[in-house]
Amino acid sequence: MKHEKPDLPPYAKIRQMNRGGYDKELANEILDAGLVAHCGFIHEGRPMVIPMVYARIGDKLYIHGASTTRIIKDNKAGVPASLEVTLLDGLVFGRSAFHHSMNFRCVIVHGTARLVEDLEEKNIALAAITDHMAPGRWAECREMLQKELKATGVLVLDVEHVSTKVRTGPPVDDPIDIGTDIWAGIVPVATGFGQPYAAADVPDGVEPPASILAARQKFA
Amino acid sequence: MKHEKPDLPPYAKIRQMNRGGYDKELANEILDAGLVAHCGFIHEGRPMVIPMVYARIGDKLYIHGASTTRIIKDNKAGVPASLEVTLLDGLVFGRSAFHHSMNFRCVIVHGTARLVEDLEEKNIALAAITDHMAPGRWAECREMLQKELKATGVLVLDVEHVSTKVRTGPPVDDPIDIGTDIWAGIVPVATGFGQPYAAADVPDGVEPPASILAARQKFA
Repeated sequence: MKHEKPDLPPYAKIRQMNRGGYDKELANEILDAGLVAHCGFIHEGRPMVIPMVYARIGDKLYIHGASTTRIIKDNKAGVPASLEVTLLDGLVFGRSAFHHSMNFRCVIVHGTARLVEDLEEKNIALAAITDHMAPGRWAECREMLQKELKATGVLVLDVEHVSTKVRTGPPVDDPIDIGTDIWAGIVPVATGFGQPYAAADVPDGVEPPASILAARQKFA
Repeated sequence: MKHEKPDLPPYAKIRQMNRGGYDKELANEILDAGLVAHCGFIHEGRPMVIPMVYARIGDKLYIHGASTTRIIKDNKAGVPASLEVTLLDGLVFGRSAFHHSMNFRCVIVHGTARLVEDLEEKNIALAAITDHMAPGRWAECREMLQKELKATGVLVLDVEHVSTKVRTGPPVDDPIDIGTDIWAGIVPVATGFGQPYAAADVPDGVEPPASILAARQKFA
């Protein structure tokens, strides 16, 4: 059976199927496009996974949390840690359960975590984390207070190794299944932002800032 | 300053702020609503985090992969493993960077992973994983072949401990910041499905099946 080459929409195009690799540029692209990182570390011999906001500056990744939390305390002193970001792009339906899959872009970063002690690096990291979520937000905010800085622990992950995995495109079914009346294809999945909703105590006339538009353009 | 109680849309309502807990019912609710799990295990002393599709049956969680992959081979024999699912519901903008946050529902499951060797349990698990993504899909599919079953490794995580964390509602700013002209509020985030896109070799007249509608209703 001859398969015609269809005129696919962008989300269905095969960029590269099941690509596993170590492409740093692609890794950075995925890291910069994600909202939540899933951070792995070892606590008393057990693997922990915690969702965190984050930012990338060059070959360093930053996460933050209350100084008193386990993830900050456990990872202060140069321990092995990892960070994974996955962007889900679609559900893939094959004719067989075996050929079901998901379209996704994913990066797994391994490195060594340590506490950021330098105050300048800490400030730059906090600005980057804030701006990662909504570009330009740091400059719109009221400045950090000393007590807030003290209550916040920032960890840096010095990136030692990245691996990426990407799946795009339609299902890849077995020849025996082609032509049957079982539907196969993809359902695109995307993350969308709703309308901003102001806190009740925002004075009349204070409008949603530029950073929200920037976030919408970045992620949606 | 008195804060008036606004008429909030459902996504902005405070169900419980920064709730950390061990509520099994809530944990199951989050597990059943997620599409991708972030699985943690230890490989040669390093914490690994891998995104996986999954399913829950009672107090057991199932993941699957090619029998030859590291995650399947490393976790065959009763080793500590964890699985985290996070649903992102919104970005939270405070007046200060310090009071920025995300609205989310997250569960972290700890347990012991082992390979599923019983063929009946393996079949039930594979059906559950397929139906987790799109309810009813297993029954629509062509039956699994022996060679496909053999090529697929299924791991079970016997759940030993769950912890949940949920944040909902608007930012919680400091009294000194209220009334300033810095915007504060939330931007809802949601996962949406696009229109199904049939593979090029699906015969004319074969329409998207009921499982896709079911998936759409479940996740979107």
